[in-house]
Amino acid sequence: MAMAERIKVIQYGIGPIGMRMVDHLAERSIFEIVGAVDTDPAKIGKELGQLSGLAGSLGVKVSGNAAELMQRTQADVVVLTTNSSLERIKPQILEIVASGKNVVSSCEELVYPWLTQPGISAEIDEAARKNDVSVLATGVNPGFLMDFLPLALTGVCRRVNRVRVERIQNAEYRRLPFQKKIGAGLTLEEFEARRKEGILRHVGLTESIHMIAAGLGWRLDRVEEVLSPIVAERRLVTPDLTLEPGLAAGVRQVGRGVKNGEEVITLDFIAAVGQPDPREHIVIEGVPAIDMGIKGGVNGDVATCAILTNAIPVVRGAAPGLRTMADVRVVPSLP
Amino acid sequence: MAMAERIKVIQYGIGPIGMRMVDHLAERSIFEIVGAVDTDPAKIGKELGQLSGLAGSLGVKVSGNAAELMQRTQADVVVLTTNSSLERIKPQILEIVASGKNVVSSCEELVYPWLTQPGISAEIDEAARKNDVSVLATGVNPGFLMDFLPLALTGVCRRVNRVRVERIQNAEYRRLPFQKKIGAGLTLEEFEARRKEGILRHVGLTESIHMIAAGLGWRLDRVEEVLSPIVAERRLVTPDLTLEPGLAAGVRQVGRGVKNGEEVITLDFIAAVGQPDPREHIVIEGVPAIDMGIKGGVNGDVATCAILTNAIPVVRGAAPGLRTMADVRVVPSLP
Repeated sequence: MAMAERIKVIQYGIGPIGMRMVDHLAERSIFEIVGAVDTDPAKIGKELGQLSGLAGSLGVKVSGNAAELMQRTQADVVVLTTNSSLERIKPQILEIVASGKNVVSSCEELVYPWLTQPGISAEIDEAARKNDVSVLATGVNPGFLMDFLPLALTGVCRRVNRVRVERIQNAEYRRLPFQKKIGAGLTLEEFEARRKEGILRHVGLTESIHMIAAGLGWRLDRVEEVLSPIVAERRLVTPDLTLEPGLAAGVRQVGRGVKNGEEVITLDFIAAVGQPDPREHIVIEGVPAIDMGIKGGVNGDVATCAILTNAIPVVRGAAPGLRTMADVRVVPSLP
Repeated sequence: MAMAERIKVIQYGIGPIGMRMVDHLAERSIFEIVGAVDTDPAKIGKELGQLSGLAGSLGVKVSGNAAELMQRTQADVVVLTTNSSLERIKPQILEIVASGKNVVSSCEELVYPWLTQPGISAEIDEAARKNDVSVLATGVNPGFLMDFLPLALTGVCRRVNRVRVERIQNAEYRRLPFQKKIGAGLTLEEFEARRKEGILRHVGLTESIHMIAAGLGWRLDRVEEVLSPIVAERRLVTPDLTLEPGLAAGVRQVGRGVKNGEEVITLDFIAAVGQPDPREHIVIEGVPAIDMGIKGGVNGDVATCAILTNAIPVVRGAAPGLRTMADVRVVPSLP
């Protein structure tokens, strides 16, 4: 491949994902990191490579002033990893887009926002078109495993009656923060309290359901999500945690899309300690029927940063506007 | 979905695939079949619905004059299912494109012709751009299972070292013509003679390898294909055929893509009577590694016509030029 010019990238948000993004971006010579921004006073002014734990310096200081950075720095794409909430991320997107830069984001609600937040979607779409840039949110889930991939598989079907997706993750060997995030070790009362606070929720099942339905031309009556604990049935011991029987081992979240009174889309998301057979599983009931599995599943930590990175050239070449994984070209791994 | 206007389609080629395409097109109200063409005198002048074995008439007579049909008939997309050879299909494509119509084709060599036939590819691309239309070839294989799908799966990978795809079909319950096509029942001498004539060859492995490599930004040293018989190890009895041990039960074709002296892409295609575990299997060696399977595999007869049909709206909305599955939006099943 000719290396005519490098793609200039700004990393916006240096949290856990943003930190790993810097590592992914820095290892590829087709990218040049030309800026970084975060609101955390402890990070502002720091050198980006050092902050992200890289061996060398990137020659980039973290800015605390996004408006000024966007104005003064010429870049092709901004990688935006600040927030899961579209409402909170919207002003950031509009500011980036107004400065003529494309956006790749990990914002779960932005993966398919057309039906959940039509007003904001139209506003972002219009601003992007006006400035001749595109905006895309992606990730391993939402963005790939439970929406793009099942949708792509239906391409060989003459008829689709029902789509069922399972994502089962074994949290046994994951980091303690991940185990805590899914409620492992909580009593069922504590779990219920956290559920009500909305802390345990995986964001994106509803968006994934809407992407599948829209891709298939289905108009749904309603979409619902139910969150419940996976309960330890026996004593579970991990390097960081010991779970007695009866405690929460993790979370199960089921999303359902209903059409003409029938459940036509089911997304079943489980992340818990002690799951014996972690996997991705997609069943298309139709003609022909398809039963797809990915043994062991896909590691979400690596995969989310990988697909955000791989999507950068795709977004740069996409038609202007608010895009989704259902309307850009396929995203292959970069060389 | 609003049913503002139907997509006007011409079916070009009323052979085995074309015949089934008519059935697939006719069952969807978003399509209006406005013409059909074939060179067979036994088909010219016949009513298309009747010829294809549909219950009713489509009000379309099969024409024997493609040039005249393209000139006189306004249509959005031509479904071209006449030939596997790009050289032989080229004049047909140029004629269609010159009349301002998009093309969806089952031509295997057209699925990714940029490296195998760069001259013809450039010629078609230029003609399509000049006429503001797009040309795409697709199918279940090549076009999806052994190229698009592995490429799509790499999107979640930080690094890809090697791609390995197996497609194993059990021909036991397939039609006799399919069993004959893969050499089932031949002595090994007869098989070898047919192999030399090029009759047993599945067309498209090389094109699939090129699509994967190009998508990953890999420059290959060479691509090779090896075809050999699958030999019956025991007596195999199907409704139409009895195979004694030592006879050919079918065909195995292996395609290899070599980069810097290493085999980095392997496509292993087996179609034989008595295969106990028919499946699709994709292994991405990389970070993360991916091991994907489709139990029982995907029925090729239905799937090829399905994806050609589903691709029609995608091609109609694609950027002008010669397109491949790697540069159009995802093709979901139509409602």
